[in-house]
Amino acid sequence: MFGANDVRVEDVPDARLIEASDALVRVTRAAICGSDLWPYNQMEHSDTGRRMGHEFIGIVDAVGADVRTISAGDLVISPFLWSDGTCVFCKEGMQSECLHGGRYGSDDVDGGQGEAVRVPQADGTLVVLQVGDDDALMPSLLTLTDVMGTGHHAAVTATVAPGKTAAVVGDGAVGLCGVIAAKRLGAEQIILLGRHPDRITLAKEFGATDIVSERGDEAVERVRELTGGLGAHSVLECVGHDQAVVTALEVARPGGAVGRVGVPQSDDTLTGIPFWKNVSIGGGPAPARAYIDELLPDVLEGRIEPGRVFDRVGTLDDVPDGYRAMNDREAIKVMIGF
Amino acid sequence: MFGANDVRVEDVPDARLIEASDALVRVTRAAICGSDLWPYNQMEHSDTGRRMGHEFIGIVDAVGADVRTISAGDLVISPFLWSDGTCVFCKEGMQSECLHGGRYGSDDVDGGQGEAVRVPQADGTLVVLQVGDDDALMPSLLTLTDVMGTGHHAAVTATVAPGKTAAVVGDGAVGLCGVIAAKRLGAEQIILLGRHPDRITLAKEFGATDIVSERGDEAVERVRELTGGLGAHSVLECVGHDQAVVTALEVARPGGAVGRVGVPQSDDTLTGIPFWKNVSIGGGPAPARAYIDELLPDVLEGRIEPGRVFDRVGTLDDVPDGYRAMNDREAIKVMIGF
Repeated sequence: MFGANDVRVEDVPDARLIEASDALVRVTRAAICGSDLWPYNQMEHSDTGRRMGHEFIGIVDAVGADVRTISAGDLVISPFLWSDGTCVFCKEGMQSECLHGGRYGSDDVDGGQGEAVRVPQADGTLVVLQVGDDDALMPSLLTLTDVMGTGHHAAVTATVAPGKTAAVVGDGAVGLCGVIAAKRLGAEQIILLGRHPDRITLAKEFGATDIVSERGDEAVERVRELTGGLGAHSVLECVGHDQAVVTALEVARPGGAVGRVGVPQSDDTLTGIPFWKNVSIGGGPAPARAYIDELLPDVLEGRIEPGRVFDRVGTLDDVPDGYRAMNDREAIKVMIGF
Repeated sequence: MFGANDVRVEDVPDARLIEASDALVRVTRAAICGSDLWPYNQMEHSDTGRRMGHEFIGIVDAVGADVRTISAGDLVISPFLWSDGTCVFCKEGMQSECLHGGRYGSDDVDGGQGEAVRVPQADGTLVVLQVGDDDALMPSLLTLTDVMGTGHHAAVTATVAPGKTAAVVGDGAVGLCGVIAAKRLGAEQIILLGRHPDRITLAKEFGATDIVSERGDEAVERVRELTGGLGAHSVLECVGHDQAVVTALEVARPGGAVGRVGVPQSDDTLTGIPFWKNVSIGGGPAPARAYIDELLPDVLEGRIEPGRVFDRVGTLDDVPDGYRAMNDREAIKVMIGF
């Protein structure tokens, strides 16, 4: 890609092994990702261009000396990020935060929309497929590189579970895979927010039970109607614009969860910061009534002593000065005895 | 409270039973909450004033005809919100979202910083204490009305668990209770971000293992140093200002969780909307490598067919037009075959 609306197929130097942990993969299937459309719409012109693509399946041509689990001739699938498989994050199943991982199409790592790719950290990254490269399942296998995994991630982080209601914001390929994921994880009701007739048809075949084609406040109202006035337990945000995140939050039920996989508009904001490191944010007014039952035995048996936060005690008449003392950081917390 | 910095103790009409589900409680202990300081700093003048207080313990003077579990003479504790105990949210342990609940100090419900309170939904709200009203545990019991439950909520929503590292942003009473909660839930390392010597002393006694008194970027850097460069698994945000939320996000480890209980600065923003309904937000770049292992059997055995999102197939030369087609919403997703 040389700039917005400027994609060209050009000859580039052959992909080759560099590190001993590399594999050289000849691509047999690749895909264009919704996230590729972001630079397609706004990339500034570049004379050298940028390699594109991070979703591919291929056949291994050669491997570096340290590669143990992948061999020449293997049909392999790669996730959209490469990862070592051994760092603390990889071991926790959070390979997208790998300490030694990275992206395709950057520096000396080729893009997936090309004939061949150098795959770093091949043992950690690649998965060998036990099917022929012309298998009828190839399109579905190809979605596991990114779009299906991404829809699944939205469903997982939105805590979809059997019997729950899910709402999917966005009817792009990720949203459609989100419908599949929500169905697979047992959602009882799956509401798709989308407007494109062909996508709606597919969403219904994938398991969507309700379609909301309104926008903004009307969409929020419609989802509430469809959920007994409560909202959806699990909301899959598959767009990324701030307005879509707001809609996702608005259609969520109190105590519910939003799983975001749409790439955010900005990186350094309260929405961007947590996204890029997969940090979840929860909380709100505490259900103190439930916690009384949980914490009371610990207080009665002396295991916790939270009452020590009261460093000032007074009577009702001392309340005004108690406010002042707390506000001036003279007192941590004031107790009133009657 | 009649306005900022204007708290007065005045005679008001006696609290009395109104609904058949009410209890009339004579207050024996009450507290001032950090959240009471918000109106103390910014409330506009009011001629009639506003009843204050939502943390109290007391003795039941009388109950309405429908009350079954509470009797006159009982020593009772109330959470800071009243709740019916029977709605769908209460049954899920999310009483702070009760469909028929509410706040003290509003309309005809008295505030807790006073001699007596009408408690609506008494059966759902009140818990009978089996101790004398002069018990030495009274300060700790009083914290269960709000501040300890709130610190616990931060720890729960930050998913504190045995062996994890927790960071607590804020050394107020809620933060200090957050330290207790993190310790109680098994955190191995507990880092308090705070600057007040007396509070730091108490935090250490409660279980804080490290103190960070720097601010801003320096605080973030210090937490990273203390956590092997990774950040904290669980971050308890106990302040509420946007800057504190940013700090909480910055000190969180990739894949970690932030639990927010600090009252946000604004209600209708991406931070305010989820707070007031206890909605969690997760997600980011999917760990597609982990999900390949999880989803591959479902594809191979035909249980899911995500490949149906590919509604256009081309060769390498078709890539440029594939971008255009996806961008124009002509194609959902494009597959390239080699």
